[in-house]
Amino acid sequence: MSEKKYVYSFQEGNKEMKEILGGKGANLAEMSALGINVPPGFTITTEVCDLYHQNNKVYPSEALEQVDEKLAELERNMGKKFGDPVDPLLVSVRSGAASSMPGMMDTILNLGLNDQSALGLAQKTGNPRFAFDSYRRLIQMFGNVVLGIDSAEFEEILENVKDTKGVQFDTDLTADDLKELIRRYKEKVLEIKGLDFPQDPKEQLKLAINAVFDSWNNYRAIRYREINNIRGLIGTAVNIQAMVFGNLGEESGTGVCFTRNPSTGENEFYGEYLMNAQGEDVVAGIRTPQPVNALKEQNPVIYQELVDICKKVEDHYRDMQDMEFTIQNGRLFILQTRNGKRTAAAAVRIAVELVNEGKLTREEALLKIEAEQLDKLLHKQIDPVAKQQAEEIAQGLPASPGAAVGQVVFTAQEAYDKAQQGLDVILVRLETSPEDIDGMHSAKGILTARGGMTSHAAVVARGMGTCCVAGCADIDINEKNKQLTIKSKGVVVKEGDFITLDGSDGRVYLGKVTTRDPEMSGDFATIMNWTDEIRTLGVRTNADTPHDAQVARKFGAEGIGLCRTEHMFFEGDRIKAVREMILAVDIEGRQKALAKLLPYQKEDFIGLFHAMDGFGVTIRLLDPPLHEFLPTEEKDIYDLAREMEVDAGTLKAKIAELHEFNPMLGHRGCRLAITYPEIYDMQVTAIIEAALEVSQDCPKCGRKTEVKPEIMIPLIGTAKELEIIKKRVVEIIEQKLQAADSKINYKIGTMIEVPRAAVTADEIAKQADFFSFGTNDLTQLGAGFSRDDAGKFLKEYVSQGIYDIDPFQSLDQRGIGELIRIAVRKGRSVKPDLKIGICGEHGGDPASVEFCYREGFTYVSCSPFRVPIARLAAAQAVIKEKTTK
Amino acid sequence: MSEKKYVYSFQEGNKEMKEILGGKGANLAEMSALGINVPPGFTITTEVCDLYHQNNKVYPSEALEQVDEKLAELERNMGKKFGDPVDPLLVSVRSGAASSMPGMMDTILNLGLNDQSALGLAQKTGNPRFAFDSYRRLIQMFGNVVLGIDSAEFEEILENVKDTKGVQFDTDLTADDLKELIRRYKEKVLEIKGLDFPQDPKEQLKLAINAVFDSWNNYRAIRYREINNIRGLIGTAVNIQAMVFGNLGEESGTGVCFTRNPSTGENEFYGEYLMNAQGEDVVAGIRTPQPVNALKEQNPVIYQELVDICKKVEDHYRDMQDMEFTIQNGRLFILQTRNGKRTAAAAVRIAVELVNEGKLTREEALLKIEAEQLDKLLHKQIDPVAKQQAEEIAQGLPASPGAAVGQVVFTAQEAYDKAQQGLDVILVRLETSPEDIDGMHSAKGILTARGGMTSHAAVVARGMGTCCVAGCADIDINEKNKQLTIKSKGVVVKEGDFITLDGSDGRVYLGKVTTRDPEMSGDFATIMNWTDEIRTLGVRTNADTPHDAQVARKFGAEGIGLCRTEHMFFEGDRIKAVREMILAVDIEGRQKALAKLLPYQKEDFIGLFHAMDGFGVTIRLLDPPLHEFLPTEEKDIYDLAREMEVDAGTLKAKIAELHEFNPMLGHRGCRLAITYPEIYDMQVTAIIEAALEVSQDCPKCGRKTEVKPEIMIPLIGTAKELEIIKKRVVEIIEQKLQAADSKINYKIGTMIEVPRAAVTADEIAKQADFFSFGTNDLTQLGAGFSRDDAGKFLKEYVSQGIYDIDPFQSLDQRGIGELIRIAVRKGRSVKPDLKIGICGEHGGDPASVEFCYREGFTYVSCSPFRVPIARLAAAQAVIKEKTTK
Repeated sequence: MSEKKYVYSFQEGNKEMKEILGGKGANLAEMSALGINVPPGFTITTEVCDLYHQNNKVYPSEALEQVDEKLAELERNMGKKFGDPVDPLLVSVRSGAASSMPGMMDTILNLGLNDQSALGLAQKTGNPRFAFDSYRRLIQMFGNVVLGIDSAEFEEILENVKDTKGVQFDTDLTADDLKELIRRYKEKVLEIKGLDFPQDPKEQLKLAINAVFDSWNNYRAIRYREINNIRGLIGTAVNIQAMVFGNLGEESGTGVCFTRNPSTGENEFYGEYLMNAQGEDVVAGIRTPQPVNALKEQNPVIYQELVDICKKVEDHYRDMQDMEFTIQNGRLFILQTRNGKRTAAAAVRIAVELVNEGKLTREEALLKIEAEQLDKLLHKQIDPVAKQQAEEIAQGLPASPGAAVGQVVFTAQEAYDKAQQGLDVILVRLETSPEDIDGMHSAKGILTARGGMTSHAAVVARGMGTCCVAGCADIDINEKNKQLTIKSKGVVVKEGDFITLDGSDGRVYLGKVTTRDPEMSGDFATIMNWTDEIRTLGVRTNADTPHDAQVARKFGAEGIGLCRTEHMFFEGDRIKAVREMILAVDIEGRQKALAKLLPYQKEDFIGLFHAMDGFGVTIRLLDPPLHEFLPTEEKDIYDLAREMEVDAGTLKAKIAELHEFNPMLGHRGCRLAITYPEIYDMQVTAIIEAALEVSQDCPKCGRKTEVKPEIMIPLIGTAKELEIIKKRVVEIIEQKLQAADSKINYKIGTMIEVPRAAVTADEIAKQADFFSFGTNDLTQLGAGFSRDDAGKFLKEYVSQGIYDIDPFQSLDQRGIGELIRIAVRKGRSVKPDLKIGICGEHGGDPASVEFCYREGFTYVSCSPFRVPIARLAAAQAVIKEKTTK
Repeated sequence: MSEKKYVYSFQEGNKEMKEILGGKGANLAEMSALGINVPPGFTITTEVCDLYHQNNKVYPSEALEQVDEKLAELERNMGKKFGDPVDPLLVSVRSGAASSMPGMMDTILNLGLNDQSALGLAQKTGNPRFAFDSYRRLIQMFGNVVLGIDSAEFEEILENVKDTKGVQFDTDLTADDLKELIRRYKEKVLEIKGLDFPQDPKEQLKLAINAVFDSWNNYRAIRYREINNIRGLIGTAVNIQAMVFGNLGEESGTGVCFTRNPSTGENEFYGEYLMNAQGEDVVAGIRTPQPVNALKEQNPVIYQELVDICKKVEDHYRDMQDMEFTIQNGRLFILQTRNGKRTAAAAVRIAVELVNEGKLTREEALLKIEAEQLDKLLHKQIDPVAKQQAEEIAQGLPASPGAAVGQVVFTAQEAYDKAQQGLDVILVRLETSPEDIDGMHSAKGILTARGGMTSHAAVVARGMGTCCVAGCADIDINEKNKQLTIKSKGVVVKEGDFITLDGSDGRVYLGKVTTRDPEMSGDFATIMNWTDEIRTLGVRTNADTPHDAQVARKFGAEGIGLCRTEHMFFEGDRIKAVREMILAVDIEGRQKALAKLLPYQKEDFIGLFHAMDGFGVTIRLLDPPLHEFLPTEEKDIYDLAREMEVDAGTLKAKIAELHEFNPMLGHRGCRLAITYPEIYDMQVTAIIEAALEVSQDCPKCGRKTEVKPEIMIPLIGTAKELEIIKKRVVEIIEQKLQAADSKINYKIGTMIEVPRAAVTADEIAKQADFFSFGTNDLTQLGAGFSRDDAGKFLKEYVSQGIYDIDPFQSLDQRGIGELIRIAVRKGRSVKPDLKIGICGEHGGDPASVEFCYREGFTYVSCSPFRVPIARLAAAQAVIKEKTTK
């Protein structure tokens, strides 16, 4: 067996080898192969990092042997020796994983310098200042990164020397000053670590490699991977590369450039540079870099060379590139290239233009856009310039994206009233409850002090596309005095004062901040059209109101996948009738109360049918337990008792009777229909009467609507439940149709959200025209934790790798996905063309959409503002499948 | 195609045809074939009943044609004509389903009589009194059963006539009196129903058949089937049989007999009879019947004939028979035979003796015993004679069988204290909570005013084998005044007064009632030995204390399948340490508190290991959410705060922090170990230290115990959880073993109770030495309803046939069973010899035990007192499988 290869020179690699060479290493290799002037070097593979961590921080000795071989090759190549006292070869040591983790891991420059070779370098370059500056930088970086000495220790010495010399900038220090600095740096190293700064370059190199490996598991790197959901990587590669210097004089310099504008996507050469500087100096921001176009005048030859390289590299990678370059004594070197990060707007524009330029196919272009990113394009945004000057007063969770400017109000009623007067309001609540729904609808934005990303406020706001900042713990709300206080700052905001919310980052600003509207046309529209040509999965929306339905349709929704009828029960006068129904002592009483609700429900459905003319409208019959419609606070109970003219004791007894230990596992969904069938009777009557009305010449709008109601029964666990309920539903519908001598194309189906239903889906499919996976509840029941309670441990679960990602955010494809696969297989085994959809919040998550495509779903359904995301994700799923086949 | 056969004469059927002829019809046919003197007749099949109900109460005309044919045959056979005015053939019409439903459906006698034939019968028999009495009985029965007239209407007339005549008994009425009665009966029929009593016997017959079919769906028949869990029957058959009369004089009579004593099982001829009487008269209890042995002297020939028939029939059926007979003018007729109902004691004795007599194999005999029935043999019972004279004061639910006599106490503390003094106490509580555990252990019996069959009191009491009457709503408890009041009776019982509970029927008696101890020896032991020879499924017990473990071992348990360690946390001083742990602000504080618990836990395990010497002991690590260990009532919180010397506000804040919306779906089970690993660390340390101690020469008992701890991790949902926890557990164990230089045969496994775990069991099996299905939670999560909350709708669910039986009582084999099948298949796919058990309450339910056998389980585990039931059910499962193969 040949020896395992642990180290690759840039000549040996290519861009496909990211897994083992890391992104930086693979791209350096690729550029070398393209004939681009890259300082030579080699890469230690990610596998060595993996072995290092698995084996108690020791990697195979063969790896070090291979490093020595490659180093010797590099010496030959450069005509210099590592550690040569006269003309030393200097190298950089940089990390680089398969996924970009900018700034998270460590880098050491100028390796190879010591007391001797620093003198040699000074002589050789004729630039002692440069040589000693390079050496003191090495000690500082090495001391910090490898030896773990706080940077501040070195900074303090530097400041001290500058003070003594009376100079302001590092660059004002003379060679002698730098020598003094080196002496004191080395002293500090000895003082803190009890050892001399290593003079053996090989020793420096070995320690530097280990330090880079260690940095893979430093806290900020781990957190970065967690936050960015970077999984399955085995470690970082280490790139060892000959140093080039941008700080050798006015013929030298360094810079970064983008092949297109990363903000706007415009096809223009973009970037900045500094002459006589190192990369650090650009970052440090002491001198202001110049726009890259200025190089055109300063050095037209180099400029043209750079432009040509950029074009060549972009054409080669067929994507916008983010590059680093150094000019050393008039010679251009490229230090790095990678696909450039870009704003959502730029991503869309670049994708379209690359296709128009013939560089990408539509399929390739669509894969380059991150579906999740589109969210940012669909909402109002705070103007970036205005944002920088705005007075930030607090920060909460970015619960629902967008921007909102308005006057503060503290009750849903106030929000509703002020909105009726045409005012823009921000509704501020401790936390919202279903009773606040009117106010939430009326508000431009919602701010809560409590609750997480899946709190009531967050979920409802995302559904409505309203900007929301949730769980802003720093605000103290005094509803009585109609004011809020920012606890940490003592700032007081009174009712009527203006604030601005940024739901995309959770920030709250005092006063009005300028916002801009989203744009749905142009390149965005082009991209959306392409997705529709490619995708096979339908995309519907979750919408409870005609307004939501209209918004979603504008975003391309092809029907409603979930209309939650319970939200309709909370509005205005309806809640009274609902409560009357709950408090009724017999079926007659319930029916009387339900009769009051019927006209409201019918109006609701008429609105939805109109908005979705020609598309299917899936209506879920009542789902929540009845106690959700009754108050829990003592005072509210007395108020209600008075209002309903019942005895408070009676009301309390009813509330106590309806109390549940585990409401998630209680008397709700179709279970209500088994015990109180009259509730669904009323809803079905409303649906079919509405359908009949709009399918005729509508008395309101004069037109005929093509109506396709799909009645969905929630929380089915057994085929028999569905059989019993369906029989009753069909009877009501057929009776109404016969009486009207009319036909309606209706369907009756079920949610699959109870694990028992998933594993007996063959029996259930016999009773169902369609399945819609309620993945929220299926996750809660299947995993055995409720969304409300899991907050206490889910973070820990994700950080320990038990779940790759919060399973309420992206479908747990392995576990809950297995329940879904079983259900799909069993369901289709008895009904091969069974219509299958998803209506949990996962329907708008790109990874979950891809899962649904792979499992043969008919459609996904998501909140209106996620419809474009789902459309793109659905197209990407098709393309990915083709690519991997 | 030949015509469908709807009607069978007794000559055409046999005992295997119960499904279509019903039990009565099939047995009448069988006896006819045996040459036993059965009045001839025929049976309309259950299929006709089914068609009747499916088709709007109309059955095929062919069925009626076939009835006519069989009736003609019967006429030829009997040499009489139906409706003949001179010598009429009279028939009975009786229901009879495949399962016995005694008294639930209707019967009509003497059909064929009318104004004319009654006169004929009077002349023919020379007994006008008999003839007119038969006719008035027909009108009364027909009027009630077929025409739906309240029996009271006829009784009133009868009483009226008797009063007028000044007689006391029906039998004192003369023929003329009876004629008057007939006149007034017919008048009443006309008055109420507006029609004449039908004179056409064929019309009578047709209406009677319909009435029997209708009675299949009367309320009491439906309820009976529900209560007795009789499922899958299509209807009742109708038996039409020539009448024989026991009331023709002193040479006539009627009786019932058993081939063995149904109370004791003794092989003696048993029964009772009345001369000159009809069946009704025996039931009515006006005259006292004589023991059947008296017939030996009264009519030795008939007696011998009866004894011979009984022997013949029992030998034929190879089971104890319950028979009805009639003597008509000195001739013996058998009207019915069926397997006799018997007490548990009789069932055991008869089974053993039938085997000893060579009539049954052991396998056949075991199948004849209802496993569930054994429960009655395992507990103390109230002496039946004493019970009849005892003063019953209330009735609740029979929550845990057995009998208990003791003095009333109202608090767990009082129960504990009094028991320490050697007194027998009955603990009376509104409802029990985990904190009452000590008192519950100390009490002889438990009585609660609230809670159902699955309340805390019921579940814990059954587990301990302590008699419990739960949900006795009629008692009003005044803990302060230390007394209870029986609301309906006003009876007051004070602390210290004696009461007696019967946990088998839920009755409560005032004072001490005599009880008797169960017997485990003799025939019972024989039966148990047979089960062990046959069964292949292991039977373990759920036991949390050494006492429970000892009891279970006496009942034949082969190890512990579930030791719930949380119960240990509630006892005495421990709860303090537990609370200290919960209130600790950091890991050090928690560890300090846990260190206090360690010695207690170790003692617990030592006791269990001793009791189960040589058998496996499965210990489940802490499962419930931490808030269960903290009080919820305001007063208790203040008390605790004082006791623990913490601020009440701090305590309240902690309780609020731990509050969960859905505790079933919250932070519990292995989730606690992911966030607070130190809890399991302590438990595992205690287990392994205990194991090491008892496997040496135990300092306490001097002997060496063979110890096999099996550590069980609850609520695993993902393989990764188990991997993380197992790693830590193994580390602790191996460290302890190394330090002790010793070996212990231990296993680490998991509960399968989360649906996600079931469907990813292949991944989980890689980490597990065993699976134990926690079917309580698996049912709750799989079906999506909690046991506490489902009470509100589960009854309705069972009555609408959505579940055949409460899924918490007997495993839902179709749905939850499918999750189990998936888990077993996936688990064994990676570990073919994976040990698989069940430890939910279903482990003691016979049908569920059979399921576990079929699915290849290694063992079942159940509460100590259900171990014999599980042993029998496990043997029966093997036998049934062989039989059906």
